[in-house]
Amino acid sequence: MTVDSLASMIDHTLLKPEATPDQVKELCAEARRHRFKTVCVNSRYVPLCRSALLGSGVEVCTVVGFPLGSSETTTKVHEALRAIEAGAIEIDMVLWIGGLIAGEDQAVEEDIRAVADAVRSRDAVLKVIFETCSLDKVQIRRACEMSIKSGAHWVKTSTGFGSGGATVEVVRLMAGEVHLHGLKVKASGGIRTLADARNMIEAGAERLGTSSGVKIIEEFQQR
Amino acid sequence: MTVDSLASMIDHTLLKPEATPDQVKELCAEARRHRFKTVCVNSRYVPLCRSALLGSGVEVCTVVGFPLGSSETTTKVHEALRAIEAGAIEIDMVLWIGGLIAGEDQAVEEDIRAVADAVRSRDAVLKVIFETCSLDKVQIRRACEMSIKSGAHWVKTSTGFGSGGATVEVVRLMAGEVHLHGLKVKASGGIRTLADARNMIEAGAERLGTSSGVKIIEEFQQR
Repeated sequence: MTVDSLASMIDHTLLKPEATPDQVKELCAEARRHRFKTVCVNSRYVPLCRSALLGSGVEVCTVVGFPLGSSETTTKVHEALRAIEAGAIEIDMVLWIGGLIAGEDQAVEEDIRAVADAVRSRDAVLKVIFETCSLDKVQIRRACEMSIKSGAHWVKTSTGFGSGGATVEVVRLMAGEVHLHGLKVKASGGIRTLADARNMIEAGAERLGTSSGVKIIEEFQQR
Repeated sequence: MTVDSLASMIDHTLLKPEATPDQVKELCAEARRHRFKTVCVNSRYVPLCRSALLGSGVEVCTVVGFPLGSSETTTKVHEALRAIEAGAIEIDMVLWIGGLIAGEDQAVEEDIRAVADAVRSRDAVLKVIFETCSLDKVQIRRACEMSIKSGAHWVKTSTGFGSGGATVEVVRLMAGEVHLHGLKVKASGGIRTLADARNMIEAGAERLGTSSGVKIIEEFQQR
């Protein structure tokens, strides 16, 4: 692993509700400096990031139905399409967690598919966030299956707002389910050190969502 | 205060992402039994609640841009309009917290006004959620002023997902700012007992957002 290959796996993330425009600009400056893959921000900040990152090669990622996943489907679709128009090329949506728990698989799948169809129609990329801390293994497997069937590109562990984040065990489980079908795994939530990052990558993650990207890169450079 | 007047001040609330349709139906049954003012649910559950509450006199309240407030304005408007079409008559939106903190008052106000105009055009009611635990007194006063100018009907303290909920001091501050202008205060977050409810009402709240409504009513009946 080189510093560039590590940086190119990081979605440099700032999603807390108190984030100000200046903090988001600083996030973009850091992403430009370290050549992270994307910045991951709330949808209001997509235009600001697009303009702050022009010419940098860093892309804009945003979140949809975030972080509860319980907003109504057309609202998720609307938010995704607006974000893509404004310059986002990766969309991280939260699935309907309560529906998954209740076994309403068809409705959960329709919700994902509606967003996947919209995102694909604009040549953007969809990641489906599961919030794995609230799910058991069987539910995680079903969520993988639905994401595959619905046309998502990635599955993602966590919002960072739940009771827990990515674990090695869950990333391995998700990778085992989706890799054969061409989907990838984004690990997110609680990734704060280079050791955390390495563990997730070894477990099968090809993208890391973290607000500690700068620290992780510095740790890598100081080895 | 009678049991009916207390119940009529309660938005019976279930917003956690793991909430299943069965739990939402149970929420509606409780609201019908105790004659709460509304049930307050995520937007996906508005149609279910509307149908479960037909003829009960209990209304449906939902949330928009929730709980981070950092989604883009047209998405908040879309979510509000869809929810009203589906049967909600009260809309609790989260303002752009980071913008308020940064002093981007004009943009914060435009965000609120866009939702207020949409909600008023359908004869529904708008509450603006501040997330007061993240704000200082000056910011809370400014948020009151913007809510007044933008056409909101209520100001509301908290999402229940932040680091703190309603306090007597903050409710009193908000009531002092908005009452003269005809707006009302909804206290929410951390209201779990009859004593909490009484404190909020005495401080000037005319609505309580709580998931402990049944317990509070039972406590009242057992005095």
